[in-house]
Amino acid sequence: MFQSGKQIKFNYQERNAMIKVSVMYPNSAEAIFNIDYYCNTHIPMVADLLGDALKSGTVDSGLAGGATGEALAFIAMGHLTFETVESFQQSFGFNAEKIMADLPNFTNIQPQVQISEIRL
Amino acid sequence: MFQSGKQIKFNYQERNAMIKVSVMYPNSAEAIFNIDYYCNTHIPMVADLLGDALKSGTVDSGLAGGATGEALAFIAMGHLTFETVESFQQSFGFNAEKIMADLPNFTNIQPQVQISEIRL
Repeated sequence: MFQSGKQIKFNYQERNAMIKVSVMYPNSAEAIFNIDYYCNTHIPMVADLLGDALKSGTVDSGLAGGATGEALAFIAMGHLTFETVESFQQSFGFNAEKIMADLPNFTNIQPQVQISEIRL
Repeated sequence: MFQSGKQIKFNYQERNAMIKVSVMYPNSAEAIFNIDYYCNTHIPMVADLLGDALKSGTVDSGLAGGATGEALAFIAMGHLTFETVESFQQSFGFNAEKIMADLPNFTNIQPQVQISEIRL
């Protein structure tokens, strides 16, 4: 992460999160997504289950495409950071069933998941 | 953003960034993307041009899909935060031509852009 200011920081975040798991919910005419449940119930449950493996996270609620009239690609995105791919896989794998079973409580969308290296 | 710890923080980030502009570069067999140029030249140029309007940002370099064998959706993603949609539009609009003209220097991909409200 970098922040605005005189000295832009191009280092890894101080909490040593090196990878990001992005869970992206594609938008469509049929898409149902309860952002309040996601923020207030689902994410806290995930954070509780993953414990120390989860370093930080953000939740974005889609507003608009970048250009006027451009379709919104994702109705919501959750970005979760971990120290390593292995720490994500271990903590998630152990709890996958519980986490996935909660999805119908807030959405009918099959999320698109991506693992990235945090470069800035 | 929230961080792990005893007290999970569900407040907006202290730097008052309320919206996020995600610039996502779709992956494909033909995709060319120079992540080093993007991190070391393009993003610093964008940060310089947008000035105080840009509050913070992250750059993710795609590693893998979430499930074994799942295709990687985005070869890279840049997430830039602003206080308001208007502050993004004003600062970007003024510099759009310069910023867009730099894209061929690191990629042949047309990015997918989305504006989101930061909920957590």
